[in-house]
Amino acid sequence: MKQKNNHHYEEKTLSTEPIFSGRVISLQVDQVQLPNGKTSTRELVKHPGAVSVIAFTKEEKIILVEQYRKPLERALVEIPAGKLEPGEEPLETAKRELEEETGYSASEWESLTSFYTSPGFADELVHVFVAKNLEKLPTELTTDEDEFVDVKEWTLSEAQAAVRDGRIQDAKTAYAVLYWELLQKKG
Amino acid sequence: MKQKNNHHYEEKTLSTEPIFSGRVISLQVDQVQLPNGKTSTRELVKHPGAVSVIAFTKEEKIILVEQYRKPLERALVEIPAGKLEPGEEPLETAKRELEEETGYSASEWESLTSFYTSPGFADELVHVFVAKNLEKLPTELTTDEDEFVDVKEWTLSEAQAAVRDGRIQDAKTAYAVLYWELLQKKG
Repeated sequence: MKQKNNHHYEEKTLSTEPIFSGRVISLQVDQVQLPNGKTSTRELVKHPGAVSVIAFTKEEKIILVEQYRKPLERALVEIPAGKLEPGEEPLETAKRELEEETGYSASEWESLTSFYTSPGFADELVHVFVAKNLEKLPTELTTDEDEFVDVKEWTLSEAQAAVRDGRIQDAKTAYAVLYWELLQKKG
Repeated sequence: MKQKNNHHYEEKTLSTEPIFSGRVISLQVDQVQLPNGKTSTRELVKHPGAVSVIAFTKEEKIILVEQYRKPLERALVEIPAGKLEPGEEPLETAKRELEEETGYSASEWESLTSFYTSPGFADELVHVFVAKNLEKLPTELTTDEDEFVDVKEWTLSEAQAAVRDGRIQDAKTAYAVLYWELLQKKG
């Protein structure tokens, strides 16, 4: 699966129509040749990729941020996350986003996994890190100028309750809660 | 968090520019007023929502489908999934997609959770179901005419290896593997 272009179900690009290029995403529509020789169209959102951080405080709470998500017209509680900047290593982005969004710095980092969030229509890849041994920074938060977040620190049982009652309804954050549950079972 | 419009970080819509309306997604750019009174733009992808199914065979294997994902220009191994059709209940979609993509019917269904896949730019909500007590249908597969999939049945250890070596790199599928691991720990 590592090779990119020789899959037996490969869809060859016949033409590409650029639709939109924005601050965060771009959109194109490709005409493709299907494995059976017929043609179809694919609507493709391009995204620079992102990082997210499962961060545990010394009191063994998980750090969450609540922010308004315009696509949903509601606020969501999520683990800290952010877009990759051009040329930035994912771990650097993760360290920066944790500090900017939560005011915490971590001295222990582990790369956990990475996943595509919506492979049917988007190429967004999210890298997931675990951060431990957190220290509160003395400085003010310095989130992006269009970003407003409330920081929360929840126990596992609070996070589990939030998954059940819908306050946690974000894919990477639901993954983080399962990961944490599993970590507890392993002792 | 259930109310939609009264969050203290709400971003009021000043104007909406429709950019694209396709077969699967649509795209608009909203001018918004931020909580600090300044304005910004938000790029918003609208998606009808989807379902995915963690399905266990009688041999306690998980059912996966491999398909080419044009946004990534590679094939991905994922749990069975599909878009909601207008007016269709998520459980009905889940039953239909499992049958169409894998040739299995299940008599035991449980709604597990639902999550937003990419809330920063898209409104896609994925409902996750668990299916047990599977029966192989006698009929041929009837996938959509532009959909080509290979069905796989993996043990937990095969799925865990696939997460580690990158053959599983899809958010809902990584979630499914963690869920399954946790299920084993709970006995």
